[in-house]
Amino acid sequence: MKLSWVPKHECDRLRMVSPSAFATACRINTLHAIMRAGSGHIGSSFSAMDIMVWLHLEVLSKPPAGHAPSIYFSSKGHDAPGLYAVLTALGDLPFHKIHELRKLDGLPGHPDIGTVGIPCNTGSLGMGISKAKGMIRADRLNGIRRGIFVMTGDGELQEGQIWESLQGAANACMGELTVIVDHNKIQSDTWIEKVSPLGDLESKFRAFGWEVAAIDGHDFAAMDTILTRFDSISSRPKVLIANTTKGRGVSFMEETSAAGEFEFYKFHSGAPATSVFDDALLELIGEAKRLGGDALCIESETIPDRVPPVGQRLVSAYGEELVRQGARYPNLVVLDADLMVDCGLLPFAEAYPERFIECGIAEQDMVSQASGLALHGKLPIVHSFACFLTPRANEQIYNNATERTKIIYVGSLAGLVPGGPGHSHQSVRDIAILAQIPGLTLIEPACAADAAAALAWAVEGNCGSSYLRLTSIPVDVPFPASTQSLVLGRGNTLREGTAVAIIGYGPVLLTEAWHAAAALDALGIDVRLIDLPWLNSIDADWLVGALAGVTRVLTLDNHYRIGGQGDMIARTIAELGLACRITRLGLDDVPLCGLNPEVLAAHGLDRTAIVRTLSL
Amino acid sequence: MKLSWVPKHECDRLRMVSPSAFATACRINTLHAIMRAGSGHIGSSFSAMDIMVWLHLEVLSKPPAGHAPSIYFSSKGHDAPGLYAVLTALGDLPFHKIHELRKLDGLPGHPDIGTVGIPCNTGSLGMGISKAKGMIRADRLNGIRRGIFVMTGDGELQEGQIWESLQGAANACMGELTVIVDHNKIQSDTWIEKVSPLGDLESKFRAFGWEVAAIDGHDFAAMDTILTRFDSISSRPKVLIANTTKGRGVSFMEETSAAGEFEFYKFHSGAPATSVFDDALLELIGEAKRLGGDALCIESETIPDRVPPVGQRLVSAYGEELVRQGARYPNLVVLDADLMVDCGLLPFAEAYPERFIECGIAEQDMVSQASGLALHGKLPIVHSFACFLTPRANEQIYNNATERTKIIYVGSLAGLVPGGPGHSHQSVRDIAILAQIPGLTLIEPACAADAAAALAWAVEGNCGSSYLRLTSIPVDVPFPASTQSLVLGRGNTLREGTAVAIIGYGPVLLTEAWHAAAALDALGIDVRLIDLPWLNSIDADWLVGALAGVTRVLTLDNHYRIGGQGDMIARTIAELGLACRITRLGLDDVPLCGLNPEVLAAHGLDRTAIVRTLSL
Repeated sequence: MKLSWVPKHECDRLRMVSPSAFATACRINTLHAIMRAGSGHIGSSFSAMDIMVWLHLEVLSKPPAGHAPSIYFSSKGHDAPGLYAVLTALGDLPFHKIHELRKLDGLPGHPDIGTVGIPCNTGSLGMGISKAKGMIRADRLNGIRRGIFVMTGDGELQEGQIWESLQGAANACMGELTVIVDHNKIQSDTWIEKVSPLGDLESKFRAFGWEVAAIDGHDFAAMDTILTRFDSISSRPKVLIANTTKGRGVSFMEETSAAGEFEFYKFHSGAPATSVFDDALLELIGEAKRLGGDALCIESETIPDRVPPVGQRLVSAYGEELVRQGARYPNLVVLDADLMVDCGLLPFAEAYPERFIECGIAEQDMVSQASGLALHGKLPIVHSFACFLTPRANEQIYNNATERTKIIYVGSLAGLVPGGPGHSHQSVRDIAILAQIPGLTLIEPACAADAAAALAWAVEGNCGSSYLRLTSIPVDVPFPASTQSLVLGRGNTLREGTAVAIIGYGPVLLTEAWHAAAALDALGIDVRLIDLPWLNSIDADWLVGALAGVTRVLTLDNHYRIGGQGDMIARTIAELGLACRITRLGLDDVPLCGLNPEVLAAHGLDRTAIVRTLSL
Repeated sequence: MKLSWVPKHECDRLRMVSPSAFATACRINTLHAIMRAGSGHIGSSFSAMDIMVWLHLEVLSKPPAGHAPSIYFSSKGHDAPGLYAVLTALGDLPFHKIHELRKLDGLPGHPDIGTVGIPCNTGSLGMGISKAKGMIRADRLNGIRRGIFVMTGDGELQEGQIWESLQGAANACMGELTVIVDHNKIQSDTWIEKVSPLGDLESKFRAFGWEVAAIDGHDFAAMDTILTRFDSISSRPKVLIANTTKGRGVSFMEETSAAGEFEFYKFHSGAPATSVFDDALLELIGEAKRLGGDALCIESETIPDRVPPVGQRLVSAYGEELVRQGARYPNLVVLDADLMVDCGLLPFAEAYPERFIECGIAEQDMVSQASGLALHGKLPIVHSFACFLTPRANEQIYNNATERTKIIYVGSLAGLVPGGPGHSHQSVRDIAILAQIPGLTLIEPACAADAAAALAWAVEGNCGSSYLRLTSIPVDVPFPASTQSLVLGRGNTLREGTAVAIIGYGPVLLTEAWHAAAALDALGIDVRLIDLPWLNSIDADWLVGALAGVTRVLTLDNHYRIGGQGDMIARTIAELGLACRITRLGLDDVPLCGLNPEVLAAHGLDRTAIVRTLSL
């Protein structure tokens, strides 16, 4: 695969030509960074690009008299590749960083203050306006006058925190604050109009006391005009609704109207296929030449083609089982928060559209709706990424538990990997923040067949509520699916051994442990490997038998060590007074962003680390 | 103290006279229930009373043709005593229950579906509209046509989930849904205009696609008129902004305009003094006689006067230290979410008003504002009740931690007691849902002096972030304050002993253990009692020394057992391979509502339970 980018000196030249020419160069470099990374958000980097370029060329460094330079950050955060392209082109970030998107020590998948030029961490939606308010309060106390510009998505406006943050900004007369809505009309899955329409955005912001304007977010002259108007308003916060086109700059990425019911926008996240990339690059280069002169300087490099990931896909298996359960139980209702595709819900939504409730990016509302559904006789199954579902709606999940109804929660994208999106998306706290909820059983399947079985158990085998924790990356699982039926609190021995017992869960770390066991075998250390899919339930009698004969136990948490499965095993050993020495592997610090193998290794959770730990 | 109430047969008679007469009887019985309980929310029970009476007499049981009876519930939930008065007067609840507010097996402080006539659990603000949406979706799938009426507070409208829930209801054309805002203009601390003004409420709801009307919430005729209008609208959800008076019905409880800056409304929560109660009762009886005829039948009983609680008040000591720290550190900024008085913040707010940020009931916005303040050089100290701060803003607290700034979080009302408000307010999950956050140290002081020391440590001794967990009830602490300075991960031995070590934290359970130790001493069991204020940090060397010579350890968690301090001690024992048998006391189920001693006993956490456990 041949990758191409516009080098720094050519970016400098195009910057002198026009904002549009510069923006086109930045689009090329965004596309390059995402292709090299193998993932990233093209659509919204492109829709927001002209605004970001305008802010960086015309606004941030040219504040009103008496003001310090303005600050900009994105609240949605997944336009980070676009922002990095701008910052590298301007020399605010080292240029070579465009080759290091989503790599360890490179540029994180979502914004992190560890990167020069990033003022705060975002990626979990809805927090940006609140953060800006805090900055403004501090600036006022510090006697600093400065504007703060925050970009939000339009789908992001479905989050309650956005609206929670608005009135206080108006009450405090925060004229320093300008919010720009990248109104590209398409959210994660598909068109907002199909997910959860926003209604009259301008009226909404106005009702909260904000100054409102709407413009074409690709029209630099219009942006200049609005800035002049906004500069004259110091008594209230301002919002600019920038009508943009997702994928702007590449004709076939610019889809402006919703297609069929279950057709989705294809360029929200992930890298395109090589041929699609080539076509897009060709278009962008053509535009750069048209705008900047025919002598466009491009640098290129040929890298190996991406190897398509192989392995078991637990989320797909889950989604297929969901359709089967839906056929069997007419009271089963599925709820989603704009991650229908990623959560494997398309088959159910197509089969039972009347029982599929798309809530939009509104996790708290979704979880509390599940309360009402359950109280009125339905079996709600609630979906999102684990990193959003379990902390954002944590109080709501607990409140539901106090009603003692039956609800199933399903968190995908669980665990440390994929490592590319970064810490806002790596769900490594969900076990700890749910495990103590009465009547809620946490389970993580280790392979595709087990994922289907886990759902069947949650629907048919468990009279209480369940949380299913699902790995989203494909994993080449080397061990067979559990042949036993699921018995609460009991695990399955994947490999017999006498020297040491490794207990873990989920496909990622059990696979690492499986390969570690083979390596340890060669060193004369005979490993017993146990899959314990239960994350907050343990059968003490089973554990006594499972650990019979071994004096050393290693637990593996794809999660923080505190509050993970290892804690449950350790406390059970202590309560039983078993003569075993236990070592718990897991995370102790904020997860790193990078390729999956390098992230697992950096946190001491790959096969090499397991071998090292047990051969000491 | 003489208590009086209107008996059921007299309620029946007054119901026939007029809604106002019936409402006055219900106000008398509300006041009675709260006086007998010793706590409860008078102000908002009284402001909402006329609406509740109107709904129950005129609306719920008289649905449009073809509809099932309508459902009503309160989202704010703290008007529960008023609702109970209505339900008992109507015979929907056994009448004797009015004597059992906030008692074990009685009527919970906030609504719980365990009580007949309560459709869902509320008390954590902002969830009610979402729950109603779920009910409506279920009803539609079940082919049931029925209206749902949800009461919200006006302060409650500061919560983001309210706005997150609105648009979806409009998009789904939920004509079944009517929200009534009890717009009494006063929230927990004081007047909304002083806390966080709501702006133009009607425009806001209209912008979200709702049908809006505003009326006098004490005018039954106006309510009838609006119902007729609303009944004709089936294509969109409706909101009735009911302008009411907090404390309505008792002249001196009806304050209609904001007093001085730091004067507060006195009848939001808690029972009034006896003389105030007598005056209020006299007024209400006079009104009932005026409306219902002079022969009002009243039943009375004389009960012992309430004994004012004595003991150390950690929150007060904390608040005083906060002023001292504020004097020392000009960058210290205090944030609050409408619990200024209950969190001990009044002294700071008076001393440093420019550094006191009142956020209203907007915990997520508050926590993310702290991010911005910290990034721009401030030391934010963030306050609310632990039950709201730590789960509602859980993702925001974690996001802040990923920025590695220094922020102090302070959760009061922590733990199982007070037992009166019920499970929405009993914070028994906060340790588990925060303990794994990198760079966040959790600490719970055991007495007033330790509370001050804990804050000083968090400000001066800890370069990372801290969470202070504070007991709010006064406790007659029998042991002396720690004379040692705080050393991370190390505890203080409160009592020497050789047979068994009890390890715990906080004034409530350490006091129970102190008294249990004396009783066990008499049984020949010599108890070592250790205060370990650190909830997620333990010094293994210290633990080895602290447990020297004992073979039995009992841990005490004022919290769920899973994820509490006992888990930390157990896993450390297991990792070190110490020859100790450990027993962990703590909660396994949803906390019960009741008097403090009866709740502690019911969950096996009082001195008797400790003696029982160790003498087996």
